[in-house]
Amino acid sequence: MYIKRNISWGIIMRFAWKNLLFFIIYAGVIFSFYHFLEWKHIDIPFQPLSVIGIAVAFYIGFKNSQSYDRFWEGRKIWGGIVNYSRTWANNVLSFVENDRAAQVTLIYRHIAWINALRIQLRQPNSFSKKENRAVERMFDRHGERNPVCSGFELLLDPKEVADLEERKNVATHLIKNQGLHLKQLLAEEKITEFDKQVFHNNLEEMYNLQGKCERIKNTPFPRQYAYFSTVFTWIFVLLVPFGLLNVFESQLAALEQGNNWWHMILMIFFSVLISWIFTTMEKVGSNSEDPFEGRINDVPMTALCKTIEIDLRDMLDEESLPEKTKPIHNILY
Amino acid sequence: MYIKRNISWGIIMRFAWKNLLFFIIYAGVIFSFYHFLEWKHIDIPFQPLSVIGIAVAFYIGFKNSQSYDRFWEGRKIWGGIVNYSRTWANNVLSFVENDRAAQVTLIYRHIAWINALRIQLRQPNSFSKKENRAVERMFDRHGERNPVCSGFELLLDPKEVADLEERKNVATHLIKNQGLHLKQLLAEEKITEFDKQVFHNNLEEMYNLQGKCERIKNTPFPRQYAYFSTVFTWIFVLLVPFGLLNVFESQLAALEQGNNWWHMILMIFFSVLISWIFTTMEKVGSNSEDPFEGRINDVPMTALCKTIEIDLRDMLDEESLPEKTKPIHNILY
Amino acid sequence: MYIKRNISWGIIMRFAWKNLLFFIIYAGVIFSFYHFLEWKHIDIPFQPLSVIGIAVAFYIGFKNSQSYDRFWEGRKIWGGIVNYSRTWANNVLSFVENDRAAQVTLIYRHIAWINALRIQLRQPNSFSKKENRAVERMFDRHGERNPVCSGFELLLDPKEVADLEERKNVATHLIKNQGLHLKQLLAEEKITEFDKQVFHNNLEEMYNLQGKCERIKNTPFPRQYAYFSTVFTWIFVLLVPFGLLNVFESQLAALEQGNNWWHMILMIFFSVLISWIFTTMEKVGSNSEDPFEGRINDVPMTALCKTIEIDLRDMLDEESLPEKTKPIHNILY
Amino acid sequence: MYIKRNISWGIIMRFAWKNLLFFIIYAGVIFSFYHFLEWKHIDIPFQPLSVIGIAVAFYIGFKNSQSYDRFWEGRKIWGGIVNYSRTWANNVLSFVENDRAAQVTLIYRHIAWINALRIQLRQPNSFSKKENRAVERMFDRHGERNPVCSGFELLLDPKEVADLEERKNVATHLIKNQGLHLKQLLAEEKITEFDKQVFHNNLEEMYNLQGKCERIKNTPFPRQYAYFSTVFTWIFVLLVPFGLLNVFESQLAALEQGNNWWHMILMIFFSVLISWIFTTMEKVGSNSEDPFEGRINDVPMTALCKTIEIDLRDMLDEESLPEKTKPIHNILY
Amino acid sequence: MYIKRNISWGIIMRFAWKNLLFFIIYAGVIFSFYHFLEWKHIDIPFQPLSVIGIAVAFYIGFKNSQSYDRFWEGRKIWGGIVNYSRTWANNVLSFVENDRAAQVTLIYRHIAWINALRIQLRQPNSFSKKENRAVERMFDRHGERNPVCSGFELLLDPKEVADLEERKNVATHLIKNQGLHLKQLLAEEKITEFDKQVFHNNLEEMYNLQGKCERIKNTPFPRQYAYFSTVFTWIFVLLVPFGLLNVFESQLAALEQGNNWWHMILMIFFSVLISWIFTTMEKVGSNSEDPFEGRINDVPMTALCKTIEIDLRDMLDEESLPEKTKPIHNILY
Repeated sequence: MYIKRNISWGIIMRFAWKNLLFFIIYAGVIFSFYHFLEWKHIDIPFQPLSVIGIAVAFYIGFKNSQSYDRFWEGRKIWGGIVNYSRTWANNVLSFVENDRAAQVTLIYRHIAWINALRIQLRQPNSFSKKENRAVERMFDRHGERNPVCSGFELLLDPKEVADLEERKNVATHLIKNQGLHLKQLLAEEKITEFDKQVFHNNLEEMYNLQGKCERIKNTPFPRQYAYFSTVFTWIFVLLVPFGLLNVFESQLAALEQGNNWWHMILMIFFSVLISWIFTTMEKVGSNSEDPFEGRINDVPMTALCKTIEIDLRDMLDEESLPEKTKPIHNILY
Repeated sequence: MYIKRNISWGIIMRFAWKNLLFFIIYAGVIFSFYHFLEWKHIDIPFQPLSVIGIAVAFYIGFKNSQSYDRFWEGRKIWGGIVNYSRTWANNVLSFVENDRAAQVTLIYRHIAWINALRIQLRQPNSFSKKENRAVERMFDRHGERNPVCSGFELLLDPKEVADLEERKNVATHLIKNQGLHLKQLLAEEKITEFDKQVFHNNLEEMYNLQGKCERIKNTPFPRQYAYFSTVFTWIFVLLVPFGLLNVFESQLAALEQGNNWWHMILMIFFSVLISWIFTTMEKVGSNSEDPFEGRINDVPMTALCKTIEIDLRDMLDEESLPEKTKPIHNILY
Repeated sequence: MYIKRNISWGIIMRFAWKNLLFFIIYAGVIFSFYHFLEWKHIDIPFQPLSVIGIAVAFYIGFKNSQSYDRFWEGRKIWGGIVNYSRTWANNVLSFVENDRAAQVTLIYRHIAWINALRIQLRQPNSFSKKENRAVERMFDRHGERNPVCSGFELLLDPKEVADLEERKNVATHLIKNQGLHLKQLLAEEKITEFDKQVFHNNLEEMYNLQGKCERIKNTPFPRQYAYFSTVFTWIFVLLVPFGLLNVFESQLAALEQGNNWWHMILMIFFSVLISWIFTTMEKVGSNSEDPFEGRINDVPMTALCKTIEIDLRDMLDEESLPEKTKPIHNILY
Repeated sequence: MYIKRNISWGIIMRFAWKNLLFFIIYAGVIFSFYHFLEWKHIDIPFQPLSVIGIAVAFYIGFKNSQSYDRFWEGRKIWGGIVNYSRTWANNVLSFVENDRAAQVTLIYRHIAWINALRIQLRQPNSFSKKENRAVERMFDRHGERNPVCSGFELLLDPKEVADLEERKNVATHLIKNQGLHLKQLLAEEKITEFDKQVFHNNLEEMYNLQGKCERIKNTPFPRQYAYFSTVFTWIFVLLVPFGLLNVFESQLAALEQGNNWWHMILMIFFSVLISWIFTTMEKVGSNSEDPFEGRINDVPMTALCKTIEIDLRDMLDEESLPEKTKPIHNILY
Repeated sequence: MYIKRNISWGIIMRFAWKNLLFFIIYAGVIFSFYHFLEWKHIDIPFQPLSVIGIAVAFYIGFKNSQSYDRFWEGRKIWGGIVNYSRTWANNVLSFVENDRAAQVTLIYRHIAWINALRIQLRQPNSFSKKENRAVERMFDRHGERNPVCSGFELLLDPKEVADLEERKNVATHLIKNQGLHLKQLLAEEKITEFDKQVFHNNLEEMYNLQGKCERIKNTPFPRQYAYFSTVFTWIFVLLVPFGLLNVFESQLAALEQGNNWWHMILMIFFSVLISWIFTTMEKVGSNSEDPFEGRINDVPMTALCKTIEIDLRDMLDEESLPEKTKPIHNILY
């Protein structure tokens, strides 16, 4: 997640340079054909292009709005994970009688769960986004790829870790183990039936939160909506220079009489500008479609996991708390 | 559900070829009339067409947004089914005392429920969508049509299966049987009143989830909204070539003086492009209106059922877990 | 609720013929004045008309979106009624000990409640919509108007029915009677305090569902939003022919020179088309504003009540279940 | 709340006459300057005006949509109050053992609460809307301004009334008194711990409903959004006549040659029409921003309170029930 | 939060003067170049500019809508804090037996929690908004910056205060302390297991409310959406004067023949107006993106905390209640 108010032009260029270069060359070629080769018939009227442009802008608007919702839903779910982590710890401290070890285990297993969930969500899948090389390199450098159970040895009993490593979905089984642990605590009369009921409501909530993350992760933004947004945008921007030939016509007449270099540049500049605005609008949404990939605009799960861990250990009155995650180049992961 | 980032042009063409062919012929005929038969009076001004075009684009935008919501709600409901399946299994393992057989039955009956629900939702109804032959053939090849109770013999007691086969709505009675089973376990003191309360909250949630699916399945996207979207779009695209005659007029003047072939092609190309963009926009929404039909953009219920089954059997510590469902030609069913 | 994918042109015409006729005559008269009486000054420029058209299209879009939400909320509420009916029956069967008679009464009283609610919602009120005669006749033929307590004699004790007939809001008192019945069952130790708590949660939910229906029924779509939508649309469509005179000007010049019949017809056709599109867009929303009136696009409450009755009687293992409601001319009521 | 389908032109004029008069004079003056004083240079091109117009229409659309949501949320909250009033009465009748007096007190105190809440919400505040004199007079005539505790003497014990009259927020303390009453009933063993839990869930819900009302009441629609909507609309409508001078130019040329009266009137009419449409669109939203003021489009709290009172007294089997609130001039308060 | 209906022009100018000055100079320079230096070739056609303008207006509309949602969600959360504060106090008074001291402590600790939360949310962060100097000075004068635990000595036991001052997140530990206090009260039999369950549901809700605030506070409106909104708007307004040169062309021809001063001023005025409308639209949203900063359009947390404190102390029947927070220059903080 980018956490400065303004995005530096360096980052914008890193994403945009390839397209910009293409637009300049593309518009340059078309205008050259028109002007130098005198292909006067290749212009197309701008009026229908306006209609396409407006229709495409709507379509992008719809898509951006839905993509934003996906990001924001992802962020809300992780907000819910923060909240229920605190509630879980609070309940453990308030309900479990005279058994510090059990309290610590229940809370540590919870910390294992949030980390397992995070790592599971960070795995790439068949519809992951690919940017140009410059961008990908940046994420590779910043990125984090761990096996799901990494670090569990500090949190859980070795036998439990060994069992978890065999499982298809580790996070699911961590919650199940909480349930079995509670069963045992009830048998030992360290919690009451009332407490069990409250605890299991929390576990239900955690399965809901986990499942909601997995839903967003495993369901791409419906490809027919997303892909045609890109296709329509590109059709529009590829037609723009032809249309500009038409509306610049009166100026182009002047072109015949001398100061051509200026109009040439003005038209190319204008063409590139429109193209850049539309493709950027379109990209802005694409970048928050999949909010759990560990990219520039994604939910900062590493930082959130660390925050939860600090909070929970502080609630256990531990002494040496870990440090907060720091942003790298203004990006929080 | 299509799970590649980009949709191959093969698939796009499979859906679009018929319309494209029609647009080419339609525009060709109109332009021929104008040019060769000199029906100069058939052009219509583009300005009012712009207003229609923008109004239609709004209308489509509204419809697409609602259609998307239907898909996404369908997906959320099935996400909820995943979550409550895990919660159910977790509660069964934590609450039911010393009775592995009862635990297995409660969980297997749940697996029967998700499969029954899936198959019930896949049945076609009076307002199902029909595509052109090429598309339909694909879905027929990939499709899955089973009777509701198929496979139940592996999950349930034969007597229960026999009873279910008589029922109007099998899924409803599976939940009812869970309730009656719980009643019996309470009588045997294998669960407490507290447990029963939590279990019945889960069953309430499952009836909610089932009912929500049935609501989407049985209520078409209100036909007056959906159908007029198609009608308006087609009216617009059928008028487009007439409007283009008008805006291309200056170029058409040139047409008189020679290089006709180029303008002919340019106008047809442009006309087909606009028509294709608008009809595609319109179709994109139609394709997610009904999310439970087992088509290219629908909720992948088969895959989700399999995922749940794997998770639940893993929670029961079973050894030989089934395989995940694989996508066929990038489509997950 | 209309349940075919495509709406037949017969039905569209039944709704539209009056407006279409008016538009044809209206445009015809204006064009005649312009052409035959040579009132050349009555044309108005189209550019400001475009702005009005687009603004009106927005406004309609907003209204349609809200109207759709009213329909969809109504449908969701009735979906909730389906779900809680099943949950109620399931709880009754699972919780009430050894008293088939009490079980049957609790479930039959619930069936009485859904039917009472349906009939209460179907009563016309001060802001009900009126269509033209042809449409109204259709609904009168298909319609259903029963007193609220009709059929109760088959479901409830005669004394209870007599008491209910005196009440202001029968549905409210049916739920109250459920509560009093539960009180008695608790006193007879046929249900536990736990069960009572769960049952009363269900009754709370039913009052919520009933109240939500009544809210939509008794609160019209705010008239200032809805009415001005119609006013603005009509202002726009009444101005359209004047604006078309202006944009068709170049063609109209040709008119002077002969082939007038064609332009005459083209302009009238075009004018009627725009008018029809805008008024239809506007009407599409109006038709789902009030979803409980028993009209073509309304929530099919009769069918849903029947479905619930079948499900509940099947859960009671009754033998002779009623038939599902069949659509009449593709409309489900 | 206005409850007729169509708004009479009398009411529309009552709201609009002042603006209409201004628009006529304003446009008249500008056109006179242009025509009679020959200030030919005061026209401005319409094209940029179109862009402003469309942008303003968007902005208004956004604002109207949010204003509608405020009204609808207000209505939903009061719907919730209706529902929980019934649930409260139902629970009181079902749970409280053998103490008619306590039942009556709990239900009457609830009736006091809804009335106190209504009157508190009706108090004017620093950002209340003011219309022109004609409109204000109407609401003053219809209006209702009572002290918060009026009528309490019929519902509550005099000592309780005296205590409440000292309080900052009477509604809050009525719920608190319910809680204390329940505490006493538990001590007297007239309700169980289970019942208390359910009752307190209801009280929690009532505080939520009350607080939601107060939130809408005390938080104006963010003034920066609302105020600039008005500013932008007025800027646009003040520019419109200048722009019309430009687009009517060709007609205005004809003006020189005679039939000036007609174009004069046509332009003024057209200008006033556009101005009226935009200012009305803008006002439609403003009128539902604050839904608790007792105005034409507000939540009919008086009627709802009466409905609840009737329902609750009917549930207590009282004989002489009050009458429903009647609309005054089609407005329900 | 601004609480007058109309925003004074003084405040508008305080925000806008810098931009207005820039727009005047910018447009003036460009028109001078065109007119005095006869750079006739710098105009650009307005038609493509319209498309950009409309696309930008959409984009801003989308952004404003989401920004509004952030504000409104923030306000809703604090509404929830008001509601649950009352519920908490009500439960404390109804449930805790014969221990006024414990009641006071539980309620005072809650007051400490809301204040701690408020102050934590008011801390600036890496993406805080900066306005021009005149605006910043105003907020500095009105502003409030306290350490988190300020005032706790009046509400809590000194030992508890000392412990809290060491904590990372004070609000979190206040809720935890409530939980531990409840544990102790249960052990002393001053509350029942039932009461504990209800109390812990309240604490769960409070963690949810706190976490939701922190989510909005710590997650900026996704910068790619917000920043490009500004960039696109500025690109558009910087191009506007060039476009106006083009559409004013006919008038500019007249310019050659004399009355230049008027057109000069008209064009500059018009250009500044468009620029101001678009930049203001864009800013309106930015101002409600981050609702907890204590600025003109933010959630008035200080006032809400005071309201809650008054309500809760009144429920404790305290005598000397604090005063309500008064707005400063019509702004409530």
